[in-house]
Amino acid sequence: MNRFTRRGLLSGMAAAGTGALIAPGAPRAIAGSAPAAGRSETQVVVVGAGLAGLTAARELVAAGCEVLVVEARDRVGGRTVNQAVTAPGADPGTIVEVGGQWVGPTQDRVLGLIQQLGLETFKTYDAGDYADYHNGKLTRYGHVFPADPLNLGLNRIPPSDPVGAAEAAAAIQELDRMAQQVPLDAPWTADDARTLDGQTFEDWMNHHLAQPGAKSLISLVINAVLSVEPRDVSLLHVLFYIASAGGLDRLVRTSDGAQESRIVGGSQRISLEMARELGPRVLLNAPVTRIEQDPAGVSVHGDNFSVRAKRCVVTAPPALAARIRYTPPLPGTRDQLTQRIPMGSVIKVQCVYPTPFWRAAGLAGQATSDTGLVRTTFDNSPPDANVGVLLGFIEGEQGRQADQMSATQRRRDVIECFTRYFGEQAADPLEYIEKNWLEEEWTRGGYGGVFTPGTWLDLGEALRAPVGHIHWAGTETATIWNGYMDGAISSGERVAKEVTNSL
Amino acid sequence: MNRFTRRGLLSGMAAAGTGALIAPGAPRAIAGSAPAAGRSETQVVVVGAGLAGLTAARELVAAGCEVLVVEARDRVGGRTVNQAVTAPGADPGTIVEVGGQWVGPTQDRVLGLIQQLGLETFKTYDAGDYADYHNGKLTRYGHVFPADPLNLGLNRIPPSDPVGAAEAAAAIQELDRMAQQVPLDAPWTADDARTLDGQTFEDWMNHHLAQPGAKSLISLVINAVLSVEPRDVSLLHVLFYIASAGGLDRLVRTSDGAQESRIVGGSQRISLEMARELGPRVLLNAPVTRIEQDPAGVSVHGDNFSVRAKRCVVTAPPALAARIRYTPPLPGTRDQLTQRIPMGSVIKVQCVYPTPFWRAAGLAGQATSDTGLVRTTFDNSPPDANVGVLLGFIEGEQGRQADQMSATQRRRDVIECFTRYFGEQAADPLEYIEKNWLEEEWTRGGYGGVFTPGTWLDLGEALRAPVGHIHWAGTETATIWNGYMDGAISSGERVAKEVTNSL
Repeated sequence: MNRFTRRGLLSGMAAAGTGALIAPGAPRAIAGSAPAAGRSETQVVVVGAGLAGLTAARELVAAGCEVLVVEARDRVGGRTVNQAVTAPGADPGTIVEVGGQWVGPTQDRVLGLIQQLGLETFKTYDAGDYADYHNGKLTRYGHVFPADPLNLGLNRIPPSDPVGAAEAAAAIQELDRMAQQVPLDAPWTADDARTLDGQTFEDWMNHHLAQPGAKSLISLVINAVLSVEPRDVSLLHVLFYIASAGGLDRLVRTSDGAQESRIVGGSQRISLEMARELGPRVLLNAPVTRIEQDPAGVSVHGDNFSVRAKRCVVTAPPALAARIRYTPPLPGTRDQLTQRIPMGSVIKVQCVYPTPFWRAAGLAGQATSDTGLVRTTFDNSPPDANVGVLLGFIEGEQGRQADQMSATQRRRDVIECFTRYFGEQAADPLEYIEKNWLEEEWTRGGYGGVFTPGTWLDLGEALRAPVGHIHWAGTETATIWNGYMDGAISSGERVAKEVTNSL
Repeated sequence: MNRFTRRGLLSGMAAAGTGALIAPGAPRAIAGSAPAAGRSETQVVVVGAGLAGLTAARELVAAGCEVLVVEARDRVGGRTVNQAVTAPGADPGTIVEVGGQWVGPTQDRVLGLIQQLGLETFKTYDAGDYADYHNGKLTRYGHVFPADPLNLGLNRIPPSDPVGAAEAAAAIQELDRMAQQVPLDAPWTADDARTLDGQTFEDWMNHHLAQPGAKSLISLVINAVLSVEPRDVSLLHVLFYIASAGGLDRLVRTSDGAQESRIVGGSQRISLEMARELGPRVLLNAPVTRIEQDPAGVSVHGDNFSVRAKRCVVTAPPALAARIRYTPPLPGTRDQLTQRIPMGSVIKVQCVYPTPFWRAAGLAGQATSDTGLVRTTFDNSPPDANVGVLLGFIEGEQGRQADQMSATQRRRDVIECFTRYFGEQAADPLEYIEKNWLEEEWTRGGYGGVFTPGTWLDLGEALRAPVGHIHWAGTETATIWNGYMDGAISSGERVAKEVTNSL
């Protein structure tokens, strides 16, 4: 028995001393009791109670392992968060998600888990026309439903600039074709990896698109899918991401795509249900500051706890996993990888109205735009539409600009966008809800980590490679539906197998 | 008097509890005594005892401020480190630098400081021919000295491929011309900033260079100057960096350039002398884990100390400054900036021989190459040449590959390079010295932080903007000689002014 096994898990070593200016909550087991108190050893510590961490823990428990999940926040769910709608007139219990929310076809991991947990889905409202604001002019147009047979992606391409739209559609086909050449488990081995990872996506656009309208549309796709600008991201990463989702069209579609369905009660319920099952194995308010390892195992430390284990699973996105101190230090290439996968820049905003008034006007609530903070919108009303909710994304450059605005200015600009796309009825919401993921201390951006040029090529191999007793998960490590809830879940399953095989 | 003023600086709160597997050294004041023990308050805490931090502290003390410098390592100097040469036959006291080492014309801050501290410089050995290994063939060539009147940069361009060399020389002129358009204090305001920051440097090369030889040469320049690949870095950042140094030719030159002179006793002496002056104001073995601020000031915490101050100066490179926990959390755009300035990838290797045998053969000890781990070399013998030292850099992609090799393999490959360039006499060094900066926990790469595409444009404004009572320094924040010792020093001077003006 070494020195670690005698240390109390909730010894509160440093909290009393260092957490004074803004005192963190005391560590709290999910069930409200503190059954882990006094325990200082387990088999596997999982860092992070998002979908990856909770899935990993669940699989490990199913395999007979003793597990402790430590979570920095005072809640589970990671990038999935439900928020109560408090607008006057809203039914009690009405929620919206302020993080990830949609599921769609081929997302078999998340769909399977939803079913296992006894949860239900419902279709995203997608009836009626879409709106497009372009060059100062609003157009409404019928979108092909449920799918265009030629798979041209045209159901998300507004017709205000037909020549640009045609070029954009051809570009989508070309990108899909290129994406098919990228091996999902090793993008750096793609035939042209050196060329593809040597350029930004913007550079590719500049040399392959002639029509300003096409550039504008394809830029918007990158904004909407990755929450970064085309200049921020490697072409190879974009192709990997497309391949990971099974096609660009699938990424951008509502019906038959990644935005097809929603989860009754909100996406955070998946995590809440898993955490309920795990009970006292989930410890909240427990940010990990340090992971030490030796030949026999790991010691995981926070300001206010310490625990010894055989293995540790880190599920934080690479940019945040880098902020834990590892002893001995991680290999140089692993560390440098985590310096090169910054988080996208997204602020999710929602306005609550007495009704989804746009539906009566024959609109789906979906708009695209080349102007303003919000350039993509959706109908995010609850399933029974007891209130109407318009959802907008502020992404990439707009996200960075909006982060620096006053809350008042940001709200004004957002409502101005909604009004521009949906008319005067949008001007006076009952409630304004926003989640600025750039400000979220334990995520620091969204939707996910995005590979900068050259990163896959030289450092990609370090993404999932365990370092001693430390294993890596999180949606950024997924091969299928990377960046999505589905990818987070598959990464949890993969890492659980890795760990059980190693024990 | 608030609660912080009663807490002992060396209270060792958490060290006994958490630092157990690999116990950090106890905090140690530089003079060996611990005069700061029991003190818990100062005016300014400086995080990092490299050139930026020590300069800032020195200037602040000169302005009458009370200062404490806290340093994670057990030494001062940051990216400047002397190492004793222990080869048999070497005079006692012989050292080489395993980090930054050269100074040159227009580096007025570092040259002035050297003079102030009573240190001396000597010229880098630069007589005789240069060598170039290209397409499997070794060429030696006379380099123009001291400068070519047309400023074509031809004195570092080997003549083995005259057509490629001519195109490379023209490209250098073009890059210098473009660099002159970049405002050093605000690169994002350059006329073409959006275009320039939208592409990797490799994109630019691919569209402006036709000759493979020119691409190869210009790539080598990027490797040598930034320790990254052309694909890793924004064109705008390369132009900023060139402008910051006053021209690409100046960056790559030895005589009349950034490699012109060395410091007697080694570059770390600058820091050692400043630390000696600062005495007990420098605390070693004190990694900062958390900085809390409130309207009245800051509290700076490590595993084993806590100190209260009016202001804090963080000098760590952005990628590492991100790893401190800030309470309240830093603004989103500041945090996202630090996710997008990864460190370059450099391993510095040196072989010690009984004599600088290449000099007798009429060689300067400088080689360039398109092959192997080491693609740039220098004569790094001590001023009296009591031994001969060949210095090589393993940079960018090679640095990442070499990081993953066994020490034996890496040493073998390095010596093979030296032998290829300087003959069989290089095959059997008395001593092999290497410093792998990727593995250095408190730097995590080198030479410095490099801006990925899009970063200057959307997030550059956050680089030096103080956040409450926290101010930012370090060579990555410099406008002149960014990335160099000179830039670190000017950043320390700038931040000291900022702080005194704010007090």
